[in-house]
Amino acid sequence: MRTFIAVDLGGTNIRAALVDEKGKILDIKKDATQADKGKEHVMKKMEDLIASLKDYEKADGIGLGIPGPTDTINGKIIISNNLPDLVGYPIADRIREHFHKPTFMANDVKVAGLAEALLGQGQGKNNIYYLTISTGVAGAMILDGKVLSGYHGHGGEIGNMSIDPNRLSIGGLNRGAAESWVSGPALVREAEKACKRQFKHAGEVFEAAKDDERAKAVVERFKDDLAVLLAGVCFVCDPEMILIQGGVMKSSADFLKDVEERMRALLFPGMRETSLASATIEEPGLVGAAMLAKSLL
Amino acid sequence: MRTFIAVDLGGTNIRAALVDEKGKILDIKKDATQADKGKEHVMKKMEDLIASLKDYEKADGIGLGIPGPTDTINGKIIISNNLPDLVGYPIADRIREHFHKPTFMANDVKVAGLAEALLGQGQGKNNIYYLTISTGVAGAMILDGKVLSGYHGHGGEIGNMSIDPNRLSIGGLNRGAAESWVSGPALVREAEKACKRQFKHAGEVFEAAKDDERAKAVVERFKDDLAVLLAGVCFVCDPEMILIQGGVMKSSADFLKDVEERMRALLFPGMRETSLASATIEEPGLVGAAMLAKSLL
Repeated sequence: MRTFIAVDLGGTNIRAALVDEKGKILDIKKDATQADKGKEHVMKKMEDLIASLKDYEKADGIGLGIPGPTDTINGKIIISNNLPDLVGYPIADRIREHFHKPTFMANDVKVAGLAEALLGQGQGKNNIYYLTISTGVAGAMILDGKVLSGYHGHGGEIGNMSIDPNRLSIGGLNRGAAESWVSGPALVREAEKACKRQFKHAGEVFEAAKDDERAKAVVERFKDDLAVLLAGVCFVCDPEMILIQGGVMKSSADFLKDVEERMRALLFPGMRETSLASATIEEPGLVGAAMLAKSLL
Repeated sequence: MRTFIAVDLGGTNIRAALVDEKGKILDIKKDATQADKGKEHVMKKMEDLIASLKDYEKADGIGLGIPGPTDTINGKIIISNNLPDLVGYPIADRIREHFHKPTFMANDVKVAGLAEALLGQGQGKNNIYYLTISTGVAGAMILDGKVLSGYHGHGGEIGNMSIDPNRLSIGGLNRGAAESWVSGPALVREAEKACKRQFKHAGEVFEAAKDDERAKAVVERFKDDLAVLLAGVCFVCDPEMILIQGGVMKSSADFLKDVEERMRALLFPGMRETSLASATIEEPGLVGAAMLAKSLL
């Protein structure tokens, strides 16, 4: 069976794994990124982690999952708050030359979506939309087993798509940007404003909505906003299924069915079978980075 | 040189053409659709038109461009106001069996987009978004020389995508649907309301805006709305270029540059080279139907 090396480069940790073509993780290693020590330090750490994996030299290729917009053609980070020193550095080229293996790089949300589409709930389907709803909101279109990055590497950056241009701009995003209204922090912010008390996370907001009308109004608006966002995505690319991952999905029992119903009400009759489901893969970032290499080899 | 048969099935006319692989129309025939006489009548007419084309028997394949949402896999119309009797009928199968040639079918906006992407302004680019702004508003994503129809044939039906959910629902579309605000009829409707007089078409509204503040306000809102719509499309699929066709584009000198600027202001910095341009192919429906067959053979 073919195997692939997967790297998940995060602001806090770098993880590397050897993954087989069915998505099984055979070996995994982790180390602190220490981005403040500069790109040479991070690159060396990545190489050492890969070389510490059992049987890494037998792998057929390498896939790198990177946070933020990614230049998939040249294998470079476009912008990054957590890894500023690596912006524009030819990460994929360096890894390719160091290990003499085909190396591919894409945004971490996109590789996670690829894992879900190929091995999770999307298995056997040709047209999947994947969405993460966590601190941020971002998506990925997976067509015929390949993930779309877009011309500038920004395909799927729907967190900045406006769901209502009459609302205020928050944190430099567009007025009514999805991320400002359907993310975990947005739910907490709005619930704190409405209920005049603190919430630890989105899960507490969903709990409070069960017997506090003010929290309930916040949750109902979240459902409406998410339905508008997802309907917009469907009108552009008309997927068979939308798979959602991220911290807010811990409370999916409290909103997913309602959002699916409201989204369907916004779609044309012929599209109303489009379904929403929770993503299920346990390590989508690592498995997806391996699938990125597999999908392009 | 390879040739393809192209059919443009409209509510008023059916046109058939023989087109070479470079998009040159070698022969063209036209007849009234007479949809009220039933599907057998329309199908027979389509067959007769094709058979009347010079050298039709030498063609490598057949492409059919059809109005409205299309089941591209089974070659059927999904919904249609103008051709209700043909909904669900296996049009592509019948033509394939009759002429013993590979036959493909897609929505007319999508085939037009394919023509522009392959032979027009999009030539040599891998990631194009095509948009028509006329009585209706609809789009198409063209990736690597292939047009995306979506799982239910509704990919690109962005006329029903909401650009502002606070506005009213018009004509059964969603609240704030793009088609209700950035189409030709929408411009006329809003200008008539603002100026309290009649307008023949969108072109007159753009003319009036040059010295009537009320018409100018309508045009400015149109530009804002179109910028929001296009930015939304960019966040989903991040094209290199957006090509626009349709009646409203006769006045493109009065709005396109401003819309491009406003759209770019809504995009992330890395996406701001995304450009807007007028589509240029003369017979995009027919040339595109031929390119559909070419792209799939």
